[in-house]
Amino acid sequence: MDTLTRLETTIAQRRGADPSSSYVAQLQARGMPVIARKLGEEAVETVVAALSGDDEELVGEAADLLFHLLVLLGEKDIALAQVLAELDRREGLSGLDEKASRSE
Amino acid sequence: MDTLTRLETTIAQRRGADPSSSYVAQLQARGMPVIARKLGEEAVETVVAALSGDDEELVGEAADLLFHLLVLLGEKDIALAQVLAELDRREGLSGLDEKASRSE
Amino acid sequence: MDTLTRLETTIAQRRGADPSSSYVAQLQARGMPVIARKLGEEAVETVVAALSGDDEELVGEAADLLFHLLVLLGEKDIALAQVLAELDRREGLSGLDEKASRSE
Amino acid sequence: MDTLTRLETTIAQRRGADPSSSYVAQLQARGMPVIARKLGEEAVETVVAALSGDDEELVGEAADLLFHLLVLLGEKDIALAQVLAELDRREGLSGLDEKASRSE
Repeated sequence: MDTLTRLETTIAQRRGADPSSSYVAQLQARGMPVIARKLGEEAVETVVAALSGDDEELVGEAADLLFHLLVLLGEKDIALAQVLAELDRREGLSGLDEKASRSE
Repeated sequence: MDTLTRLETTIAQRRGADPSSSYVAQLQARGMPVIARKLGEEAVETVVAALSGDDEELVGEAADLLFHLLVLLGEKDIALAQVLAELDRREGLSGLDEKASRSE
Repeated sequence: MDTLTRLETTIAQRRGADPSSSYVAQLQARGMPVIARKLGEEAVETVVAALSGDDEELVGEAADLLFHLLVLLGEKDIALAQVLAELDRREGLSGLDEKASRSE
Repeated sequence: MDTLTRLETTIAQRRGADPSSSYVAQLQARGMPVIARKLGEEAVETVVAALSGDDEELVGEAADLLFHLLVLLGEKDIALAQVLAELDRREGLSGLDEKASRSE
């Protein structure tokens, strides 16, 4: 199983766990406003790392961003697969555009 | 090949394409400040959709966020695999915590 | 009357105006999720301008940020004076700290 | 002297103070990437408070946002007056639009 799918499963399993024993359970207990705020803050940190940090910082911030995106989606019972399906759908729609640009 | 890896490949192939024929090539031509700004804006839209939108909106915004994260990483020559490896490393470190919370 | 107070008054007067004739009335008609999203986006643009833009860009983005903050507060019927009173209150609390640091 | 101008003066006076004795001096010592990150995070908190908090939370977050905007402008030696002048200039430009919408 790949990293994001395994992480998604782990996050789902934490639901209802003791908040004192798990960061994810703590976020889940605090609810969507706190989860959404964390996602936004990690995105800001990713922006700042991209503009003024080194690669190691950016990798760390991007990992934080993906992690909190999975927690947020899980809170809404939206599977990562639904988001990936949307990306697939869009890529299909832009196929002609892609070929045009590749042939440059 | 899975969705994110394929998208990462597509984004890399657009580099140097005619900006008028591809949104990705346009972002790449405008440079990191514009790419970082777009990532931040998509994160804000994800936050707002999570707090006041429906599932369909949130799926669309999460897809936009992932897409622009891949463009941003590509601009720094950082592979998605490096970010996933960081997530794997962290999950390994928190293994004991995870088992503790699951046994509740 | 100073700039921010006059702008606050103007924004309040637009409420109920024809959205087609005023940007503020358009934001007010679209509601808080759109207003909050705009505030967040202007903040991202301010962050990017601070890290990679020139002074003129930053002045423009900071102006956009203040403007949308006033629209957002107005939407909640919160006066700018309430926010300024909170800043005054905090400065009073940190008076000793301020004197300590100034005497360095 | 009004609140924002007085706060701007205080922030300028902290420059070079001992970081251990003042939060502003600490931010100034850490530099623009940290200051910009803080501004972005306060904006995210303002967005979340506007969509799911009460008025007291929103007043507090808006105060934090204004405070960190003044720290950020100070770091670039941009006076708040320059940002207010830009807002005045724009309001002048939109005068006709404003009258049109007010006459509704």
